[in-house]
Amino acid sequence: MPRYRAILEYDGTPFCGWQRQRGVLSIQEVFETALAILAFDPVTVFAAGRTDAGVHALGQVVHFDLKKVWDPFCLQAALNFYLRPHPVAILSLAEVSINFHARLQAIERHYRYQIINRRAPLCLDRNRAWHITTPLDVAAMNKAAQYLVGHHDFTTFRAKDCQSLSPVKTIYAIHFTSEDSFITMHIKAPSFLHHQVRNMIGTLVQVGRGTWKPEQVKEALEAKARAAGGPTAPPSGLFFVRVVYPETLFFLPDYNSA
Amino acid sequence: MPRYRAILEYDGTPFCGWQRQRGVLSIQEVFETALAILAFDPVTVFAAGRTDAGVHALGQVVHFDLKKVWDPFCLQAALNFYLRPHPVAILSLAEVSINFHARLQAIERHYRYQIINRRAPLCLDRNRAWHITTPLDVAAMNKAAQYLVGHHDFTTFRAKDCQSLSPVKTIYAIHFTSEDSFITMHIKAPSFLHHQVRNMIGTLVQVGRGTWKPEQVKEALEAKARAAGGPTAPPSGLFFVRVVYPETLFFLPDYNSA
Repeated sequence: MPRYRAILEYDGTPFCGWQRQRGVLSIQEVFETALAILAFDPVTVFAAGRTDAGVHALGQVVHFDLKKVWDPFCLQAALNFYLRPHPVAILSLAEVSINFHARLQAIERHYRYQIINRRAPLCLDRNRAWHITTPLDVAAMNKAAQYLVGHHDFTTFRAKDCQSLSPVKTIYAIHFTSEDSFITMHIKAPSFLHHQVRNMIGTLVQVGRGTWKPEQVKEALEAKARAAGGPTAPPSGLFFVRVVYPETLFFLPDYNSA
Repeated sequence: MPRYRAILEYDGTPFCGWQRQRGVLSIQEVFETALAILAFDPVTVFAAGRTDAGVHALGQVVHFDLKKVWDPFCLQAALNFYLRPHPVAILSLAEVSINFHARLQAIERHYRYQIINRRAPLCLDRNRAWHITTPLDVAAMNKAAQYLVGHHDFTTFRAKDCQSLSPVKTIYAIHFTSEDSFITMHIKAPSFLHHQVRNMIGTLVQVGRGTWKPEQVKEALEAKARAAGGPTAPPSGLFFVRVVYPETLFFLPDYNSA
């Protein structure tokens, strides 16, 4: 059975998240339904990351097996045709080795979190950012963020229902960029706990508002208790940007570098 | 009567354009309706540029007169509250000299045109770009664009219903930037003819596709006939970015530099 890897963009707004759930629409269901039309059979799709309701993707990576060999160009076009009613699209598609696994082989995941810091309501970026009206100190947020970089027990930033075996994770890098009222957090790690990015940005925004000192983020981390962290940021600002695999160039020839 | 200047962002998708028209919803109507609630009187609003249906604004500038003096902070907040059901928001608001005129005193207008050049349908950027699936040669488009810079008779790029007294206009600069599948045209001029930007980009895309040679854009310009130009690009890719006035700093203290 040939295996295919697809890179997806989606607007998470109308979905309950990546993963299939009864009674609500998931990106997985939409994608598997499109595949089933072509394959005449149910097909299971595996994703690099299970994004939550309202979270967007610029480069989610998935894999699936088909019984028949398809021309990748035609398969991408056909799937995009059946996906069309939904804001989900395949940016690139390739046949890959049967050893490729979108989730298990990912060595790095990049997310970004978009804040728009202004009084005026959002027009062009509704559902694409967290709208914060009180002024934020980006330098202080960036300073505080550096306490989170490295190998730590992230219990403070972990959702109650997180199914990860261990709260210990490694963050490779966090940095902020800002232009006018747009403040963006860029974050890279091998993997994340459930709600980890949104809980971290929710906490860093407390620093940005001046409610917390940067050093309090270090204390919160060390407390290893969810109650010590800040609130969970809304999903609309979160974008799953990119997944890195070993020998990226081999597996991902036309990888979207966005 | 105090005069106020407001800088507006809007998503042009649901509107018939800036200007009031019978039976359809305009940004002008939405804005004047919000103002009338506060002023207890009809108020006329003057805009720097009359954007078409579907065209967006990041920094449209308008002015209007009120009978009573308002605190600008409160006036902005109140207007944004009444505008809220619509994707229209005031980014900044200030009282200005009674001599200020949003349209007549503008000395420079900046637009940008967004193309997304990829096979996959748009998800996150629906209604925010022109989706072109055939590969475009950006360097050729940029080369061809330089024939349009300067003082010319732009009859070739002028809409039939254009009300401008003369087809002669000056373009200060056009340049393209591109990142992954995103191609953006940036253009600056004192003022534009009706549909001028969309007709120019429609023509430059012919060059990008390889249908036209860059030199044919020069010939089209010199033909001074709309039939010699390319098609009109869709409005969804066009953003009215910024308006420049003399003594910008005086009139526009917290001008959005987007």
